[in-house]
Amino acid sequence: MKAEIIAVGTELLMGHVVNTNAAEIALMLEGIGIGTYYHTVVGDNEKRLSDVFSTAVSRADVIVVSGGLGPTEDDLTRETVSSVLGRTLHRDDDWARHLEELFIRHRWGSSSSAPLPTNNYRQAMVPEGGVLLPNDRGTAPGIWLAHTVHTEETPREILVALVPGPPREMRGLMQSTVVPRLQRIAEERGLTGVLVSKVLRVIGLGESRVAELLSDLLAQQTNPTIAPLAQPGEVSLRITARSASRSTADRLIAETKQQIYEILGAAIYGEDDTSLEKVVGELLLVRGFTLATAESCTGGLLGDRITDIPGSSAYFNGGIVSYSNTAKVALLGVKERDIESHGAVSEAVAQAMAEGVRERLGSDYGIGITGIAGPTGGSEEKPVGLTYIAVAGPGESGVCREYVFPGERTVVKRRAAQTALSLLRAALLDS
Amino acid sequence: MKAEIIAVGTELLMGHVVNTNAAEIALMLEGIGIGTYYHTVVGDNEKRLSDVFSTAVSRADVIVVSGGLGPTEDDLTRETVSSVLGRTLHRDDDWARHLEELFIRHRWGSSSSAPLPTNNYRQAMVPEGGVLLPNDRGTAPGIWLAHTVHTEETPREILVALVPGPPREMRGLMQSTVVPRLQRIAEERGLTGVLVSKVLRVIGLGESRVAELLSDLLAQQTNPTIAPLAQPGEVSLRITARSASRSTADRLIAETKQQIYEILGAAIYGEDDTSLEKVVGELLLVRGFTLATAESCTGGLLGDRITDIPGSSAYFNGGIVSYSNTAKVALLGVKERDIESHGAVSEAVAQAMAEGVRERLGSDYGIGITGIAGPTGGSEEKPVGLTYIAVAGPGESGVCREYVFPGERTVVKRRAAQTALSLLRAALLDS
Repeated sequence: MKAEIIAVGTELLMGHVVNTNAAEIALMLEGIGIGTYYHTVVGDNEKRLSDVFSTAVSRADVIVVSGGLGPTEDDLTRETVSSVLGRTLHRDDDWARHLEELFIRHRWGSSSSAPLPTNNYRQAMVPEGGVLLPNDRGTAPGIWLAHTVHTEETPREILVALVPGPPREMRGLMQSTVVPRLQRIAEERGLTGVLVSKVLRVIGLGESRVAELLSDLLAQQTNPTIAPLAQPGEVSLRITARSASRSTADRLIAETKQQIYEILGAAIYGEDDTSLEKVVGELLLVRGFTLATAESCTGGLLGDRITDIPGSSAYFNGGIVSYSNTAKVALLGVKERDIESHGAVSEAVAQAMAEGVRERLGSDYGIGITGIAGPTGGSEEKPVGLTYIAVAGPGESGVCREYVFPGERTVVKRRAAQTALSLLRAALLDS
Repeated sequence: MKAEIIAVGTELLMGHVVNTNAAEIALMLEGIGIGTYYHTVVGDNEKRLSDVFSTAVSRADVIVVSGGLGPTEDDLTRETVSSVLGRTLHRDDDWARHLEELFIRHRWGSSSSAPLPTNNYRQAMVPEGGVLLPNDRGTAPGIWLAHTVHTEETPREILVALVPGPPREMRGLMQSTVVPRLQRIAEERGLTGVLVSKVLRVIGLGESRVAELLSDLLAQQTNPTIAPLAQPGEVSLRITARSASRSTADRLIAETKQQIYEILGAAIYGEDDTSLEKVVGELLLVRGFTLATAESCTGGLLGDRITDIPGSSAYFNGGIVSYSNTAKVALLGVKERDIESHGAVSEAVAQAMAEGVRERLGSDYGIGITGIAGPTGGSEEKPVGLTYIAVAGPGESGVCREYVFPGERTVVKRRAAQTALSLLRAALLDS
């Protein structure tokens, strides 16, 4: 099956927003063995969208269109696609009612008694024969359509999926409904060639060090392939196997995975879509420990990441963002003379922060972070990026490390929070 | 002049690399008044590239092709474009010599006495009538071509630029030679138009409500155009004016901008690339006020956003992440009986958190946020998304509001932090 991806939106066309959706969708299709042959971006213009979609109908088996499903006048995908396929639109009453309920519940309008603005009902319109795909992350649902193209030769069936443009909504709908539907159809048609991917997430080693350690494996790779990718604060390794059957691909992946684990060991903190905060949360939960954080330069980012995990209230007691020195002293019991003699960015202060927050929040573990996020505030002796991270735990298990993180302000913050989680993970693995 | 951008590369098509080039090129063209009408991504495949390029020739005045100019077998742009335009390729001896010199200087080969590998000479090939554009950041030069398309009607001249795919090389060549050439030609043809954009950022109103309030303006829009775009927690309005001169475009933008300000007023919090945390930070700085935050469901996200702004230590004293009830009582002085009678997610607790952190961190303003981020923890009476946000300020200026934010856990957190900044902004504007 040949796929084609169309992204609709003048903001994409003019370059104000980068078309990340097409790449994400292509990766998802690759995952179920469907190759993509074209991406197109077109603006919110009926004539041009109609041309682009007609071209896709003439050459593709699967067409995914993202964007242009919203409530406003310039959202034209629903109408244009229906018109090219010669289908009328009808209102889905369930979705219309759902929109009315959402409107009341979240009080979108200025006054809670106002009715749902008329243009919103456009989002409940579905082409004849199409299936409405509920969107639990937004108001515009997706649409699924199987359509027969009558050519001079034999009739040809194409599959069309319309998904909303906001990446979160596109992702949700693709993963929950569009990809599983396509996969089932590909299997029914005996097109069961599959690509299987597995991502290993590595912490504490740079990309070139990982490549060096894996140099033999990287040199021999054919199937599966191994692709290292550096991200701020971690390296991911994507193993991809191609095979006629899922089971063979899975076996190929498992073998390569094992070889990599033998080399990198505990530097691999997780697989696929996990995150360091999730892995650390599971370790805390399993061991029955609680955590508190004392953040200076990260300003709350560490607590934000920890609390992104559902159920984190079971192990996260809370934190103190001691941005000013006064806050460090008053809320954490850091000694003024330590700040005076070593400076606020020092090992002594990081340790006192970790101990202080651990004690004040009655937690098993405490983390203290103090650093210079920049762009100003650095000196010859204490450059921008200099950061001390301390972990205080039960007994004598504390550590404190010094780092100089590269990058601009928000990158330094991100690297500091990531490293703090990594240090805590190491402490928990040792506990 | 209508432009079209083609990006060539299987890695783009499969989604392993995001096509940022098209967006960058579109922005550069917009800057000299050339509108882009289509982006296409196609793989390293001669037949499909030929089809895509032929379509572009039939409908565009300017075609920019990025990628596929390297030395390897799968780099086909030069050959395919020449073939579609019916031109033969000849070797540019200067560039061939330049490649040989580079080869010796950087010892590409395994041995310095080896000759330049033959495939590299492909990078010195130029279509008949074309101009080689030297690339000082890589080995593949760009190519510039003016071509007359003979149609049944009048002949039409098109301009074609081929640029390398690596973003740094594309950028260098576009800025140094392609954009200036296009601009000169546009001027010679009296098409000295410019496109100017301005973004207005709106807070506290949903997209459909903004569209309703601006319905008259949106209905009449021709030049400038007004494009609303919904993002989590805010709506942006992009005003784009097209005109022969920059000054006229600026005037058109200013007029429309004023009309929108008259309707939306203080709901517009800023323009262009600003952020709510930046605007709030400037207000605090100008008025000489300090701030402290007490976060429950947002877990530190608000503090993280506030401290993303360089220099925020001048007005941000710090915060308390009171994730557990014990932390709310011990660190913020929230009364246990308030938690018992109203629940931790209540107006009374949000207000006590705001007042408590304001007092404990000796700040002019305090923010308190308590809510149910989900996915669990909700009830009939207190659903997931229910959030109370309080702002405590000098005198009797406090407010507390109730919200039910839609979306999953991280989105509820994001909306809560965004709304807290919006409430603080309103309080500061009133102060």
